[in-house]
Amino acid sequence: MFNRTTTALILAASFWLLLPRQPVSADALGGQFVIVVELEIDPSQLDAYKAAIKENGETAVRVEPGCWGFNAVFEKDNPARVRLLEIYENADAFKAHLETPHFKKYAEATKDMVKARKRIENLPITLNVKGK
Amino acid sequence: MFNRTTTALILAASFWLLLPRQPVSADALGGQFVIVVELEIDPSQLDAYKAAIKENGETAVRVEPGCWGFNAVFEKDNPARVRLLEIYENADAFKAHLETPHFKKYAEATKDMVKARKRIENLPITLNVKGK
Repeated sequence: MFNRTTTALILAASFWLLLPRQPVSADALGGQFVIVVELEIDPSQLDAYKAAIKENGETAVRVEPGCWGFNAVFEKDNPARVRLLEIYENADAFKAHLETPHFKKYAEATKDMVKARKRIENLPITLNVKGK
Repeated sequence: MFNRTTTALILAASFWLLLPRQPVSADALGGQFVIVVELEIDPSQLDAYKAAIKENGETAVRVEPGCWGFNAVFEKDNPARVRLLEIYENADAFKAHLETPHFKKYAEATKDMVKARKRIENLPITLNVKGK
């Protein structure tokens, strides 16, 4: 009925289907990709930094199909400590962001304003925003 | 033409209008209030923690008028490190969140799952989400 190769493939597929499964995570699905950036800004250049990140974030969400959200905040008790939370469709959309003219303009404009930067790659548990 | 009280009020208003203005910040406006929470979760209870924070965050954005956004993510390279970024209309809306049944249920359910927690109060620079 089947030749030897086909039979071997069917058997292999059957065993694979019987293997125990791990719960499927967002990671396994290749879903959204969330970048957190923790920044320490030169306090004397904080207003200029805020203007630059505002322009970069607003532009990214408006023009990049894969940039779904871009939030920048500063600590109430330590305003030079800034955090970004950027939501991309996937890791490739973040790579694409780094090649855009608005990101390059931001990076060049702020390179002497940033005293320290830590970038952390994340996967979502839940992302919620009130309907408009 | 005007009585004495009216003239005094007009003069006071005129002087007030002539005072130099500081740029108005989100802080001065008492605007949105952003909570960042950095958590270390017991790895053996991570799935249960994720389910609990997902329910809390989704419910908060759906039922609380002052909760505008609720994001929870975990580090790609260290999945027990979780971050929350919660956007409230103002500081009072965050206080109201802490009194809701869904927050209290979450806090009770997860109290033995959380190994470390740091809560940081922030003010927004820019908050952007792609239009739906």
